[in-house]
Amino acid sequence: MPEFLTLIPPEQALERLLEHLQVIPSSEIVATSDALQRVTAAEVRAPHPLPEFARSTVDGFALRAVDTYGAAESLPAYLPLVGEVPMGAAPDFSISAVQCALIHTGGMLPAGANAVIMVEYTQTSRNDEVEILRSVAVGENVLQIGEDVSANQVVIPSGTLLRPAEIGGLMALGFVQIAVAKRPRVAIISSGDEVIPPEQSPSPGQVRDINSYTISAVVKRAGAIPVPYGIISDQLTAMDTAVARAHRECDIVVVTAGSSASARDLTANVFDRLGKPGVLVHGINTRPGKPTILGVCEGKAVIGLPGNPVSALVNASIFITPVINILTGLRQTGPQPFLPARLTLNLASQAGREDWIPIKLIPSEDGYQAEPIFGKSNLIFTLAAADGLLRIPPDANGVSAGEQVDIILL
Amino acid sequence: MPEFLTLIPPEQALERLLEHLQVIPSSEIVATSDALQRVTAAEVRAPHPLPEFARSTVDGFALRAVDTYGAAESLPAYLPLVGEVPMGAAPDFSISAVQCALIHTGGMLPAGANAVIMVEYTQTSRNDEVEILRSVAVGENVLQIGEDVSANQVVIPSGTLLRPAEIGGLMALGFVQIAVAKRPRVAIISSGDEVIPPEQSPSPGQVRDINSYTISAVVKRAGAIPVPYGIISDQLTAMDTAVARAHRECDIVVVTAGSSASARDLTANVFDRLGKPGVLVHGINTRPGKPTILGVCEGKAVIGLPGNPVSALVNASIFITPVINILTGLRQTGPQPFLPARLTLNLASQAGREDWIPIKLIPSEDGYQAEPIFGKSNLIFTLAAADGLLRIPPDANGVSAGEQVDIILL
Repeated sequence: MPEFLTLIPPEQALERLLEHLQVIPSSEIVATSDALQRVTAAEVRAPHPLPEFARSTVDGFALRAVDTYGAAESLPAYLPLVGEVPMGAAPDFSISAVQCALIHTGGMLPAGANAVIMVEYTQTSRNDEVEILRSVAVGENVLQIGEDVSANQVVIPSGTLLRPAEIGGLMALGFVQIAVAKRPRVAIISSGDEVIPPEQSPSPGQVRDINSYTISAVVKRAGAIPVPYGIISDQLTAMDTAVARAHRECDIVVVTAGSSASARDLTANVFDRLGKPGVLVHGINTRPGKPTILGVCEGKAVIGLPGNPVSALVNASIFITPVINILTGLRQTGPQPFLPARLTLNLASQAGREDWIPIKLIPSEDGYQAEPIFGKSNLIFTLAAADGLLRIPPDANGVSAGEQVDIILL
Repeated sequence: MPEFLTLIPPEQALERLLEHLQVIPSSEIVATSDALQRVTAAEVRAPHPLPEFARSTVDGFALRAVDTYGAAESLPAYLPLVGEVPMGAAPDFSISAVQCALIHTGGMLPAGANAVIMVEYTQTSRNDEVEILRSVAVGENVLQIGEDVSANQVVIPSGTLLRPAEIGGLMALGFVQIAVAKRPRVAIISSGDEVIPPEQSPSPGQVRDINSYTISAVVKRAGAIPVPYGIISDQLTAMDTAVARAHRECDIVVVTAGSSASARDLTANVFDRLGKPGVLVHGINTRPGKPTILGVCEGKAVIGLPGNPVSALVNASIFITPVINILTGLRQTGPQPFLPARLTLNLASQAGREDWIPIKLIPSEDGYQAEPIFGKSNLIFTLAAADGLLRIPPDANGVSAGEQVDIILL
């Protein structure tokens, strides 16, 4: 009955899972205005250059640069004014030598003009003539055709996470719809004979389901769809049936084990009967999270998380999120944001084990102080009080007070 | 016609807006499972302690600690086994002196027991007796009643952003519904005679609307509801009507100005006619974003952003997001995550002006390198190529190559 596991480091565990994963790209067309945080399913090429016409970047006068050469406040150039560029339409005139036209920011450069002088460097003493007080270079204050993107240029590669800037770029090119990766469906099964739905009042010995909801929240944040399968009893048949159904209907199956060792073994057994290769990792060299189970059955990831809430939540981020990213084809997850802070206390850690410590960040004069929050890993409010997590790598046996550490924000 | 503005620093500009803002708290009840990223509208107190009963944190044997004192591998204590604690129910027996009971992780401690010994430190040689190979202290491997939270304790203050951990904590206490601040409604009006909807093909001189969509995305990310009012012509009457309707129907009004100076002035005039005190700030000492307009009309924030897409997007984050946070009562926005990186180039900046430079992050051996992306601020794909922004404060006139800088991730 003692649980002796062969523990492997988390990175290696994840790698073993990912190399067996079968990724079948699947996409859907959505309105670009609803595509925030989605991942592109194909590269996007510009159908036309941006801008499509030479535009002024300032309010001023469109002219030929050569006509301003040598102009100064003490020796202005005088250019006859031949018109005003309308906003939203092509000017119906062109600029010849020694002429200028009023133009507004964003206005289309008239034919013949090759620069714009800012209104601040001019004087309009007479209605039909402008005093030029400074010289401008060819192209000055002009956005050239294709200066943002040229026609047929790849503007957004496949597998790009769409942020506000990409949404704007797509709209600028007229893409009001966009092909994005389908959101993976993540089955979430809670098990444990002691676990009851949160809307019920626990009798002595019972606890409310926490893990279904924390894991659903992590899955949502990662851009996938949580599919709850409820609380399943720690019986082989019940688990077998529920897990098989979840495996048919979803792209990833997550089971949070009942707390007992036998309930944890049950998860591994059920995964092994589900398909090849089955369980790949049982036991991870990390705290919290040691009894985590990772496997692949017929190409789909199956993940067994420990029953205790802090462990389940921390390990959901470590293992489920990367699988979701692989399935959506996310090109790169981008740099992980963190905050440097100074540790307030000595923290011991077992060498060879990766520790994740909940941290409260306290603003101080020179940045943040990182105050560890101690608590058994069963205490969900330990995490609710934390701003982030400190990772102590396996090759360290602790971190000293006053050391600068990187806090991963929760 | 030249646009001379009195520029003030962005923090001071925001402060001026916030001090005139009228915050009327308004809340709604939502399912806790749908409350991720929402902000609590009232403090949450624990209706009962967590855990509600003393639980084992390991698989092992419940006993009285005193009966293990002096036990060692060379000198085991022998305790008769009186039962097994069922999962999800109270044990129907109690522990007397020199007795023990099998217990699983999460099991309820039987009456009489005050500690649990891990199964790894026991041997079960006979069915009805357990060899104890080590002593345990009182309370060892036991989660006491109220160790996570005690009854009536404030577990989540009002104004808390709900992350996965808080969702889990609420479920643990049986809160399947929760009062959260209503999402503010943010009216978004695009103006400019040169601007057309993205689904249309621009004629020469016309450009597609980008700002409605990038600002909507920023508003969504900040937890509010974007309400688009379409593209309004640069005519006083049309703008007056649209802005007045938006001001009646929404909590914040955002107008992205047409590009020309006269269109920008129009926004300020329309705001001033909308109510007291009207425009508070016209001109911010920042690049991009100089012609930003901030005001409050009858308690509601009105914000005029420059027409050019990069400027509109950067300043939406700087000015709209904090107003949304104030309206939802967000207690603290938490530390802003950033990434330290080394600048690859000298960057000059005008002293007295705050500059925001788009940055591409390049992984290197010792962290990230920050490579500035140069481009006129009208180029939306400049931002799409960026991982983050570098803020150069007004008191610096540049940053040297090789210096460590903090990149705010986009």
